[in-house]
Amino acid sequence: MKVFSVFGYSKSGKTTTIEQIIPELKKRGYRVGSVKNIHNEGFFLDVVGSNTWRHRQAGSEMVVARGLKETDILLPRQLDMETILGYFNHDYVIVEGVSDTILPKILCAYEHEEIEGRLNDFIFVISGRISNHLSEYNGIPVINPLSDVKKLVDLIENKVADKMPFVNGLEHCGACGCNCRDFALRVLNGESIQKECVFIKNRVSVTIGQREILVDSLFESQLNSSIVGLLAQLDNFNPDDEIKISIGK
Amino acid sequence: MKVFSVFGYSKSGKTTTIEQIIPELKKRGYRVGSVKNIHNEGFFLDVVGSNTWRHRQAGSEMVVARGLKETDILLPRQLDMETILGYFNHDYVIVEGVSDTILPKILCAYEHEEIEGRLNDFIFVISGRISNHLSEYNGIPVINPLSDVKKLVDLIENKVADKMPFVNGLEHCGACGCNCRDFALRVLNGESIQKECVFIKNRVSVTIGQREILVDSLFESQLNSSIVGLLAQLDNFNPDDEIKISIGK
Repeated sequence: MKVFSVFGYSKSGKTTTIEQIIPELKKRGYRVGSVKNIHNEGFFLDVVGSNTWRHRQAGSEMVVARGLKETDILLPRQLDMETILGYFNHDYVIVEGVSDTILPKILCAYEHEEIEGRLNDFIFVISGRISNHLSEYNGIPVINPLSDVKKLVDLIENKVADKMPFVNGLEHCGACGCNCRDFALRVLNGESIQKECVFIKNRVSVTIGQREILVDSLFESQLNSSIVGLLAQLDNFNPDDEIKISIGK
Repeated sequence: MKVFSVFGYSKSGKTTTIEQIIPELKKRGYRVGSVKNIHNEGFFLDVVGSNTWRHRQAGSEMVVARGLKETDILLPRQLDMETILGYFNHDYVIVEGVSDTILPKILCAYEHEEIEGRLNDFIFVISGRISNHLSEYNGIPVINPLSDVKKLVDLIENKVADKMPFVNGLEHCGACGCNCRDFALRVLNGESIQKECVFIKNRVSVTIGQREILVDSLFESQLNSSIVGLLAQLDNFNPDDEIKISIGK
C-alpha cells in the first residue's frame, strides 16, 4: 500500500490538488482511499440530537451509521495515523494535512513565503495555487494540478513507494542498517530499493497482542511452511489466496 | 462478543431504550458499541462541500476524517451486517433498527397493534413507550427502560449469548446438527448451551481469501500447537496474548 501526504497552509489548494489526483489514479486502475486531518477544535461530523449522536452521548465507544448508500464508523477519539492506515487495504492512500511523518509529501502553497518555512526532505513536488506562476523551486518541481495532472501522477507513481513499517519514523527494526526515516528518504531519492526492507519483503506478518512483530526471513519461512502445509489438507485450498489466522480471538 | 437488536416502528422509543441500556451495561464493566440502521434514502452524514465530501466526490473509496476529538471512517456504500460487526471487538454491540437477522431482539412499540405484526421468535423482551401501560404480552415481559433499566439489563445479561457465525442464519456448518437460526433459538430459549457451537468454541479462526473456514477440533489443535510452538521462541512471548498471522499480505 502506497501512502503520501498533501500538506500546506489553508487555501493553498490541497483539496483541489487531491481532487485532481484521485480520478487520475483511478483511471490508471488503482484503488484509492484518503484521510483528511482536521485541526479545528470544533469539528464533529455528527448532528447534535441525531440517533447516532444520542448513542455516543449515552457512552457507545464506537457507533456505526448504516445508511442505504453509505456506512460511517464513528469513533469518539483521535486515532493515531498508524492505526488509521491499518483500516485501509487500498493501492494508494492520500493523507491531507499531515506533515510530521516520513510519508512522501506534496507541499501546496499560495505564495513563495509559505514554502521556505515548510520545506523538508520528504517533499518530492510542490503544487497548489503557486503552480500558476512557478515551475520549479530549489530543484523541486512545481506542477499545476489542474492543467498537468498526468505529469503529477506520473511523478507519484515514480516516487511513492510502499508504506514503511512505522510512519513516524522513530521506531525501527534496524535490519537495513538505519532507521525508517533515513531508509524512506533513501528510497525516495532512489538511493535504495524498498525490497531491502525486511518488513516489506516479508510475505508473513505476525501480531502478538497489539504489537506487530518484525520476523527474520528464516523464521518467516518456518511459519509459512508449517501453516501452508497444514492448510493444504483443506478442500479447494489455493496457496495464492491470502491467509489470516487468529488465535485467542 | 454479544450482539442484540432493538427494533420497532418510528417513535416507539428505540433510541430512548438504547440510551438507558448503554450506561447501565458500562456501569457493569462492559465495553459497548452500537449500530444505527438508517432506512432514509436521503441519509448522508457528510456535509456537501466539505473537504471529506470533495474527496469522496473525486472517487476516494474510503475517506477518514481525523479530528482532534473524533475519527470517522466513511464508506460510500452500504456494508452488510456481518462485515460491520467484524469492525467491533466490544463486549456488547447494540444494533438499532434491524429485524431480519437471528440476533436476540428487543421489540419497541407504542401501541398494542404494533406488536402483533412484528412478533418473532427472537424477541426476548418488549420495551419502549408501550411499557408505560403494559407489563407482559403473550408471555413476553414488557419492561420500562426509564424506570426499570436494571431489570432490563439483567435480562440482556441472562439472554444474549455470543454472536453466531452468520447473523442471517441461513449459512451454517451443520456441526451442531442444525442451522444457525435454529441453534440460536435453542440457545435463547435455554435448550442448548452455546459452547456446542464449533465456531464459538474454537480458539483459532482461519480466513482464506474472503472466506472464514470452519475448522474441526483436531485441525484447530494442530494449527494452534505448530504456531504457538514456533512463536514461543520469540522474546517476551506470552501464550495468553492474542496472535494474528497474515500470509500473502
